[in-house]
Amino acid sequence: MRKVAVVGIGETKFGPAQDKTSVELFAEAAMEAMTGSNLKPKDMQALFLGNVLGDFSEGQGMVQAFAAENIGCYNIPANRYEGACASASMAVRDAFMWIASGFYDVVLAGGVERAATMGTAMATRTFAMFSDSHYEYPAGITFPALFAMLAHLYAAKYGIPLEKLKEQMATVSVQSYRYGMFNPKGHLRKEVDVAAVLNSFMVSTPLQLHDCCPFSDGAAALVLTTEEIARKLTDKPVFITGVGQASSGPLVSQRDYLPRLKAREISAQRAYEMAGLKPEDIDFCELHDCFSIASLIAAEGLGFFDYGTSGEAWMKGEAAIGGKIAINPSGGLKSKGHPIGATGAGQVYEVTKQLRGEVEPERMVEGARIGMTDTLGGDGGTLVNIILQRGW
Amino acid sequence: MRKVAVVGIGETKFGPAQDKTSVELFAEAAMEAMTGSNLKPKDMQALFLGNVLGDFSEGQGMVQAFAAENIGCYNIPANRYEGACASASMAVRDAFMWIASGFYDVVLAGGVERAATMGTAMATRTFAMFSDSHYEYPAGITFPALFAMLAHLYAAKYGIPLEKLKEQMATVSVQSYRYGMFNPKGHLRKEVDVAAVLNSFMVSTPLQLHDCCPFSDGAAALVLTTEEIARKLTDKPVFITGVGQASSGPLVSQRDYLPRLKAREISAQRAYEMAGLKPEDIDFCELHDCFSIASLIAAEGLGFFDYGTSGEAWMKGEAAIGGKIAINPSGGLKSKGHPIGATGAGQVYEVTKQLRGEVEPERMVEGARIGMTDTLGGDGGTLVNIILQRGW
Repeated sequence: MRKVAVVGIGETKFGPAQDKTSVELFAEAAMEAMTGSNLKPKDMQALFLGNVLGDFSEGQGMVQAFAAENIGCYNIPANRYEGACASASMAVRDAFMWIASGFYDVVLAGGVERAATMGTAMATRTFAMFSDSHYEYPAGITFPALFAMLAHLYAAKYGIPLEKLKEQMATVSVQSYRYGMFNPKGHLRKEVDVAAVLNSFMVSTPLQLHDCCPFSDGAAALVLTTEEIARKLTDKPVFITGVGQASSGPLVSQRDYLPRLKAREISAQRAYEMAGLKPEDIDFCELHDCFSIASLIAAEGLGFFDYGTSGEAWMKGEAAIGGKIAINPSGGLKSKGHPIGATGAGQVYEVTKQLRGEVEPERMVEGARIGMTDTLGGDGGTLVNIILQRGW
Repeated sequence: MRKVAVVGIGETKFGPAQDKTSVELFAEAAMEAMTGSNLKPKDMQALFLGNVLGDFSEGQGMVQAFAAENIGCYNIPANRYEGACASASMAVRDAFMWIASGFYDVVLAGGVERAATMGTAMATRTFAMFSDSHYEYPAGITFPALFAMLAHLYAAKYGIPLEKLKEQMATVSVQSYRYGMFNPKGHLRKEVDVAAVLNSFMVSTPLQLHDCCPFSDGAAALVLTTEEIARKLTDKPVFITGVGQASSGPLVSQRDYLPRLKAREISAQRAYEMAGLKPEDIDFCELHDCFSIASLIAAEGLGFFDYGTSGEAWMKGEAAIGGKIAINPSGGLKSKGHPIGATGAGQVYEVTKQLRGEVEPERMVEGARIGMTDTLGGDGGTLVNIILQRGW
């Protein structure tokens, strides 16, 4: 297995409905990634692209073929991956493997989505297709409803009064907004305090507006290559040292206790093992905070905090820059935004930028050498984790 | 790179709307493949699944996660691939790589689709999203219209009178129906003669009903593993010795002459090179005959016949069993059927079955040692070729 490096990164602004096609959005991110890598379109040997709702939002399926041609990557193999919100992470993991195996030397990976274009109501309804459509969706399980249920179950399991949990969740959102303010690519850039979260309108009890991430339009792209090529192109190569992926089926497959996603624990364990690392080695993590409760659950599943204690950790600043582990210094899905099929590539973009020390001072994790991503597709259907490390 | 073998194959009947969910359809194919391989669900290390229209036909996205859980493959990485009709071939090629690279030893690959469920009119309209939705679809380019246009361009290029071409195309369909009669998994099993083709109703001039394949519901599954494991499991391992894939963008990217798909020539060349073979080494081919004209074009792009001569070759029986190369002894998409995202895996199923000598005598390619698949996604957006060989 060869070492695999990220040598180019690109990203559009994540945001509300944009007057661009998916092909145009991806081109913007891809050209930035290729230019930054000092490679050209003709050097890309394959394109692996995450995209979830393209058929619905734009009437465009197989978008990867048109995207490849549009950026001058003529006739290369181009794959579309769909694993709900984890689609782009799936694409990156696959790109990693094709390079690690020696088959390709340079692969362009990423994701693109026009989710905001659909409007929140339509997107929520459409996106519910990525839970079990036969038993869960008809029972009213859209994603806000599901995560609200997880919040109740989590509170009950650990004996946390609901008002206390709401305060903890608000703290999660407030921290994300605080860092996101400084992310030029972010969707919702504004200062939000705990009172504002707790006074925002109720979406699905106990989740209020500021507990929920937005749907965004956006794209992210990464140029991956071998160590040998990376060393020639840059003196700041970032290596992918661990990847993990796992799936689960309908919610019932979680058995006793829904909020503890077995798929995440398996996926993270695989990534840690491949990298030869433990949770305490990770300096910062971009994790899947589609809802504030999702952050608490994810941080525990990844091994950063003990079960039932995440909320306290956030309240004490242990999940902030300078704390035990910096969580979502990008602003996360909550503030930076959530272009479904592009989100995972956006996380890798952020981790790479942090490791290179290229982010704004207000959200920089000083001296960070190891970062991690966590992307959750659906209600556990797909989990992907990627660990990245400084190569210098 | 390790050698990769197909050790288990499974397939549902391809056919009209079936009263089964995609998860149920895939389970049927997957259980047959696993049972036949003498392996168990717990032995599968990943699931790579092609699916195109699941969100539209059934309101089910990320079907692979639910499919994996349903067949007892708990928490394994499960990817969905979408490259229009070539989705499952893309999944098989990826599975091949993950095993060849040494990362996995056993992978379940396949595809599932409920295309007939949607009805032909709705499916044709929906499926047009897999051409360029901004410039082609609004111009009226559904797939029947596109292939009708290719037929006109092909006839003009090679100076073939349209009536002559129609007779040649009819011969293609008649041959497919003839073999498909004997395929127990087939969708349209009936005897159709040239007169019946030429008297069938006009779909898009010059393509008539019997020039067009049906939309089918169905699933196909394959268990892939290493040579070492394969030798222990079976005395009839079939090896994947070459894979190729390429893409193209909108039709205009074809430049001068639409019917000659550059992506196919590149994809096929890669597969031949990897296998160390030439077109004349291939004993039979399951190629993408979504329309009769598509067969003529594909057989030339794959190097089986000179450009402009395919129709003559079919008329002379050179594309039949016993001829120069046997084309679509399964009945092809025309007769066996076309469950979009499952079709490519169905082709590998057929090639494996032929190489094992397990098909019905009336459609058996006696002594065949090398078979090939060709799958076309959209109007050239994705091309995948897979070469399989007897391992004994």
